[in-house]
Amino acid sequence: MNQDALRIIPLGGQEEVGRNMTVFEYQDSIVVIDMGIQFPEENMPGIDYVVPNVDYLKDKSKTIKAVAFTHGHLDHIGAAPILLEKLGYPLIIGRPLTLALIKDRMEDHKKGSSQKLKTIEIKSINEKINLGKIKMEFFEVEHSIMDSMGIILKTPSATAIHMGDWTIGTNLDSKKTISYNHLSKLPKPTILLVESLGSTNKKPISNEEEMWKNLREIISDTKGRTIIATFSSQIERIKGIISYAQSINKKVALDGYSMKRNIAIARKLGYIKDAKDVVIDIKKISEYPDNKIIVLCTGAQGEDRAVLSRIVSGNHKYLKLRKKDTIVFSSSVVPGNERSVQRLKDNLYRQSDNVIHNEIMNIHVSGHTNIDSIKKVVREINPTYILPVYANHYFLKEAKKIISGDNFKANNIFILDNGNIINFEKNNRPYIEKDKADTSYVFIDGLGKTKLEEVVLRDRRALSNDGIFVIIAVVDSKTGKVVGSPDIISRGFIHLDTSKQILREARKQAVLIVEKSTGKDQTANWNYIKNNLRENLADFLFQKTQKRPMILPVVIEV
Amino acid sequence: MNQDALRIIPLGGQEEVGRNMTVFEYQDSIVVIDMGIQFPEENMPGIDYVVPNVDYLKDKSKTIKAVAFTHGHLDHIGAAPILLEKLGYPLIIGRPLTLALIKDRMEDHKKGSSQKLKTIEIKSINEKINLGKIKMEFFEVEHSIMDSMGIILKTPSATAIHMGDWTIGTNLDSKKTISYNHLSKLPKPTILLVESLGSTNKKPISNEEEMWKNLREIISDTKGRTIIATFSSQIERIKGIISYAQSINKKVALDGYSMKRNIAIARKLGYIKDAKDVVIDIKKISEYPDNKIIVLCTGAQGEDRAVLSRIVSGNHKYLKLRKKDTIVFSSSVVPGNERSVQRLKDNLYRQSDNVIHNEIMNIHVSGHTNIDSIKKVVREINPTYILPVYANHYFLKEAKKIISGDNFKANNIFILDNGNIINFEKNNRPYIEKDKADTSYVFIDGLGKTKLEEVVLRDRRALSNDGIFVIIAVVDSKTGKVVGSPDIISRGFIHLDTSKQILREARKQAVLIVEKSTGKDQTANWNYIKNNLRENLADFLFQKTQKRPMILPVVIEV
Repeated sequence: MNQDALRIIPLGGQEEVGRNMTVFEYQDSIVVIDMGIQFPEENMPGIDYVVPNVDYLKDKSKTIKAVAFTHGHLDHIGAAPILLEKLGYPLIIGRPLTLALIKDRMEDHKKGSSQKLKTIEIKSINEKINLGKIKMEFFEVEHSIMDSMGIILKTPSATAIHMGDWTIGTNLDSKKTISYNHLSKLPKPTILLVESLGSTNKKPISNEEEMWKNLREIISDTKGRTIIATFSSQIERIKGIISYAQSINKKVALDGYSMKRNIAIARKLGYIKDAKDVVIDIKKISEYPDNKIIVLCTGAQGEDRAVLSRIVSGNHKYLKLRKKDTIVFSSSVVPGNERSVQRLKDNLYRQSDNVIHNEIMNIHVSGHTNIDSIKKVVREINPTYILPVYANHYFLKEAKKIISGDNFKANNIFILDNGNIINFEKNNRPYIEKDKADTSYVFIDGLGKTKLEEVVLRDRRALSNDGIFVIIAVVDSKTGKVVGSPDIISRGFIHLDTSKQILREARKQAVLIVEKSTGKDQTANWNYIKNNLRENLADFLFQKTQKRPMILPVVIEV
Repeated sequence: MNQDALRIIPLGGQEEVGRNMTVFEYQDSIVVIDMGIQFPEENMPGIDYVVPNVDYLKDKSKTIKAVAFTHGHLDHIGAAPILLEKLGYPLIIGRPLTLALIKDRMEDHKKGSSQKLKTIEIKSINEKINLGKIKMEFFEVEHSIMDSMGIILKTPSATAIHMGDWTIGTNLDSKKTISYNHLSKLPKPTILLVESLGSTNKKPISNEEEMWKNLREIISDTKGRTIIATFSSQIERIKGIISYAQSINKKVALDGYSMKRNIAIARKLGYIKDAKDVVIDIKKISEYPDNKIIVLCTGAQGEDRAVLSRIVSGNHKYLKLRKKDTIVFSSSVVPGNERSVQRLKDNLYRQSDNVIHNEIMNIHVSGHTNIDSIKKVVREINPTYILPVYANHYFLKEAKKIISGDNFKANNIFILDNGNIINFEKNNRPYIEKDKADTSYVFIDGLGKTKLEEVVLRDRRALSNDGIFVIIAVVDSKTGKVVGSPDIISRGFIHLDTSKQILREARKQAVLIVEKSTGKDQTANWNYIKNNLRENLADFLFQKTQKRPMILPVVIEV
């Protein structure tokens, strides 16, 4: 390995959405960007989330100069509480809101843990930080949360430009579009890491002005209460709604754990001002006329225990839906949640005549981008090499297609997998090293303190399909006979009350199988007997029911 | 109840998509339209599908004059094998392809069962059939399978017009658009049952001509093989591809159980002609140059065991992917399958440079409709009353909004739930009866012969979240002491090898709990002991792991 090389290792953020994390290594200096979580796939039952595997960094914690965070969304900061602890609390870098959100999440995970943090707060986008042999600089990007930024890493062999998540639209506050021309002047070779979720999106970026016009009209025209469900991370949107509420003399009640926490943080940092007279406690909404009330809540994805689901099921303590209430989904549907959102809508339409979502009118604008913007950014930055990142593999491939179709050399675009190590030496062509970093799934489940082994997941999947069938035989060790009738416990397989015949036969079979291999005063091979029981009962039950429950034979010798 | 009334009872097709079935009852005559299945929701693990509950018809099987099927898609015919048997094989009515598909499905379900059918095959759309006091007529509709039709039911008190599934586009064969003006002349009052899946769709109906242009270009330009994944029910599309293949001298190999069966039926009926020289066995694809081969297969939804998944995982016997192969998704993503389709695409993009789906270009046109078409149809038919049907509840409500917004009296539009009974008397306002028909879920699982009880599903959901924990204690009935150490079997909960400490403590607790309630020669209350074990271990395990496995205590007295 050439020592004068910048090595880039994505530990997450390639292959699928979320769990974003990238390692930059130059000699004895390592800088990490982002530590995100990924929400579980449908074949990971009971899992809370997935975090990046940091085994690659295990013996290198002393060379980690810093972890920098591009912005405060969970797919970029969510794994920080677990991974920072694991890596011995390296220095972290971010803008104020991002750092505040990380600290809050750490306290939530383990009280007092945020006090172990060493932090550099980026107050001006022009700050420059020396981190061992890597120099870090920053630049503005536009995204759906305040304090988003891009990061530049300068090393003697190459300059990496990481955009984080980004879009190009109209910034609500400043009304000016961000340009990236200045990045074209960075020392070459430059490597652009470009988030590519928009690489198949042919539509124009939806119009934020139109969205606000629609939202304002809805809020001002409603006769009943306005209930707006959105992501708790949509802090800019929530801010805009609070300030519009103030201007027309309405009150805003926030509900949802993460919603309330995020807004409390944004208020404390001064990102949301003058909310004091507007924001009221959800307990107090009945003290105002209905048409003065806006409720901002979580649960737009149909999550079982979130606020909106509690409202619709009548289990909300302070809010019972009325026909004239207006419910607004100011959100998109996260892939995988389509059917739960449909169910939620169905239930809302039963109780209200005014349910408004993006199918009806533009009331949500995504923080991501489209094909034209990707081309535009590449032209402006004009990098030497490009790594499409932070999206499903197929989006990365499509990004490569559109960028190379726009006159960028295709073989200067590299599609990495998680764990690939790409090596940039000063005067050589970049190459991907043979060995990969381990990026196998790290599942977080329950207490969130332990990895969950794949075998446990496999069992859960099997259990959820066909259930479990436990058969317990007590054997008299002297006679080799089964005492009484074997006990059967079955869950999730078939309903025992209506399947008595099958159970009777299963018991009879079990006795035969056991007694075939035991005998008076003879030493029985219990493992052999159990395997026999398992196989024979599996065949028998499949033949009777076409189902394959997990079979657990228990043989007790007394 | 007034005897001179037409009663309409949707047993499925309201509230959610699929499981379509509607009952029409006039005095002692009952006609049923459609018997569809619904695919399981994510909270129904292990379920194959859901069929309509026909308890309402239980004691009325003699008055069922016929079951008519609008077209051959599974959400309209899939439950026929189970329900026709249950209802004693009433007369069935449909066009040739529809009937052939039903018979095929019945044979698949139970060999020889299709011979029990009494059928009327609709050869001309102008046929009229007397069914007791109900007269049945038919009309053409356009949909993505041949032989789709609408059904008219005339009774002395009202005329019902059921559109089945429909769209308005350009019929590929005849290039003429269907008009519904003639239906406005039916005897009043008329009731229009209108499938409303398009009620939030503002986009123009996608252009079928453009789709064909794109598909043809892809097929003729590919250097490697063309692999097209589509729904096996897209018989029109498959027909079009076969006939284009013939014209440019390529061969088509069909793969996928339902794909092959459906096409065999369509060929046998003469709906796909001259395929003899074009369609080859999948085993023979290697006998032709790659650029002469088109493979039509199932699995576009990412289904685990379907052809496309087997191809991508390298488990297909006759087809190993090559970089220059082109893979085409001529299909939409069924809600709920988004993430599996994303995974499938990711894996395909790894192996081929040419993966084409609807995000990239128009290569699929839906068989359903949009807002403008719904308005158009209502204006043409000009019915007295409207029942939006065959869609999620929220689509039905939106259909009501757009139709009433187009100058149709809102209170002549009725949104029904499954099981609602709406009553049309000659000179009175329609009303919904107080009592509902039972439409609780009927789950089909495994052999498909038995209903599955909700309790079994609940267990599966619990098992899939946190797994199971079985503890087995053997108690000496004389001393009341636990013999040895209790056995623990746990699956899907935590990994036993890495959790020895927790298991040790659980065993110790179990012994204490059991022995607290047993004693020398004292009669123990085993149920009480088991409950105690369950509750105490639940608390203990939750405290240690934040998980709530299903706990099954087994106490054996010896």
